[in-house]
Amino acid sequence: MGDPAGIGPELTAKAWAALHTTGPHFLWLGDPATLPETTPTKIIAHPNEAAETFPHALPILPIPLTTPATPGHPTPANTHAITQSIAQATALTCAGETAAVVTNPIAKSVLAAGGFQHPGHTEYLAALCNIPGKELMMLASPHLRVVLVSIHVSLRHAIETLTTERIIATSRKTADALKRDFGIPHPRLAIAGLNPHAGEDGLMGLEDREIVAPAVEALRQSGIDATGPLPPDTMFTIDARKTYDAAICLYHDQGLIPLKTLDIAQGVNITLGLPIIRTSPDHGTAFNIAGHDKADPSSLIAALHMAATLATNRNRNPS
Amino acid sequence: MGDPAGIGPELTAKAWAALHTTGPHFLWLGDPATLPETTPTKIIAHPNEAAETFPHALPILPIPLTTPATPGHPTPANTHAITQSIAQATALTCAGETAAVVTNPIAKSVLAAGGFQHPGHTEYLAALCNIPGKELMMLASPHLRVVLVSIHVSLRHAIETLTTERIIATSRKTADALKRDFGIPHPRLAIAGLNPHAGEDGLMGLEDREIVAPAVEALRQSGIDATGPLPPDTMFTIDARKTYDAAICLYHDQGLIPLKTLDIAQGVNITLGLPIIRTSPDHGTAFNIAGHDKADPSSLIAALHMAATLATNRNRNPS
Repeated sequence: MGDPAGIGPELTAKAWAALHTTGPHFLWLGDPATLPETTPTKIIAHPNEAAETFPHALPILPIPLTTPATPGHPTPANTHAITQSIAQATALTCAGETAAVVTNPIAKSVLAAGGFQHPGHTEYLAALCNIPGKELMMLASPHLRVVLVSIHVSLRHAIETLTTERIIATSRKTADALKRDFGIPHPRLAIAGLNPHAGEDGLMGLEDREIVAPAVEALRQSGIDATGPLPPDTMFTIDARKTYDAAICLYHDQGLIPLKTLDIAQGVNITLGLPIIRTSPDHGTAFNIAGHDKADPSSLIAALHMAATLATNRNRNPS
Repeated sequence: MGDPAGIGPELTAKAWAALHTTGPHFLWLGDPATLPETTPTKIIAHPNEAAETFPHALPILPIPLTTPATPGHPTPANTHAITQSIAQATALTCAGETAAVVTNPIAKSVLAAGGFQHPGHTEYLAALCNIPGKELMMLASPHLRVVLVSIHVSLRHAIETLTTERIIATSRKTADALKRDFGIPHPRLAIAGLNPHAGEDGLMGLEDREIVAPAVEALRQSGIDATGPLPPDTMFTIDARKTYDAAICLYHDQGLIPLKTLDIAQGVNITLGLPIIRTSPDHGTAFNIAGHDKADPSSLIAALHMAATLATNRNRNPS
């Protein structure tokens, strides 16, 4: 569902319109009253009805809102419905009734005012799956995949908490996910440096030599094809991108600047490290344009395609 | 000249071949023995002979090397010749005999071993012009212009030395240069935030609120069209780039990642804040491919075009 006052309902209707003849098929957990009136919908009782329904109507497992949604005006009163949508989708997927969870955007501050205790989707899903703190964020577009060693912390905190162990753990989970979910038998990882020119032999900071290089060495010794620490400014050029399957980035903007600079529309957020497949569009609730039929569904459509691909691969390559 | 054991001589020959019928014309300060034998050259006695020579041969003001250059094998023995090339080009331009200085790449570590005291070209030029510490680095490509508040320091040091005053001074000089040298009467500046999402109201670091925001406010009050602090990951998207003339970036990779990700070939390094125009290609000496006729002259050619454009604009808009 995502926040029903954001662009989620509109994007869902557009994604169904774009995919209903081709698939992949999906069902929606939300309140039918929030969808555009022109979208054909059908209330279903069980996920196994979704496939046959999808070509004709958007299949819905209804979750009624507490308060009617007004586009652009979110309310904490609907916090329970929003979080129920996430929890039910996760439960269905854990039970094998659905293949993956795709989440529409939520607004942290709105949910927090409604009593929600988690910083965001990713952390809530990790808690629902009983693996808090083990989740990883990958952002993927047709041009680039990046995985973040630290996410939503200050740049100073990202530097202070950077350790060899965190880089190794992030890289290992990434390599596992690339094999199992992306179908890449011998994944190549590019490990970013922290400082300009990856420190240039210690002239510009010691972290690259003392923290990052030992991680790369340990990964290589354990048989993972890791290269680095790489100068951050040249590792995302068109030629450099051909040499690896994922970039391990040491702070939020090191990974998200190149990804969004290259392709804001088709970026997909993928949570690695969960027992289930979960993707989401790489944008927010966009309350400022909600209800105006302006929202671009490209990222949600890409997230749906990605979820289907990952689920297919994981079935082929069970761990 | 740049380092004669790097790709500088080869690039210069290729740039002359690409530009000799169209211009802009240039003269070269270097040792003719380092150029490919196929390049027609003519020793000139004064820069005013360059224009008529250029269509037929590369005009050269000779600077003999101490030791013959071997491509790929730099030697500190040629430090004096390399630095003389820079100093003479600067002196000619200060005297109005030439319109601009364009520098081929040098290698810091080689020159340092030869007794050179400056961290690089930019700082040496500032010293030659008697304004040490006032220089600024802009990187420009057809897609984006970025100016760096800090350059070759560790990421930790860039954060620790970030002040409202430095952001204001950098932004003012950038606005002046955009008016005078780029011919943009009302330049628009995008000021990057430091932290993810520009701190998200202090949730992820306080620098955006306490250091960056007051700089933007002061710039706006003084009549400069500045916007920010902007979330770093979304300020370089194709739509966002249309809304400003230069991005003020708070650390090296924040500016150089998007610039090089979009366009490694045509990036040009421009030194702002000098009394003369100076540009350079946005790459290094590439000792590993020197002498193999593999080097791409696109960035040097872009630097020569950029120097000519800036010099023309500055003549039209004298300060």
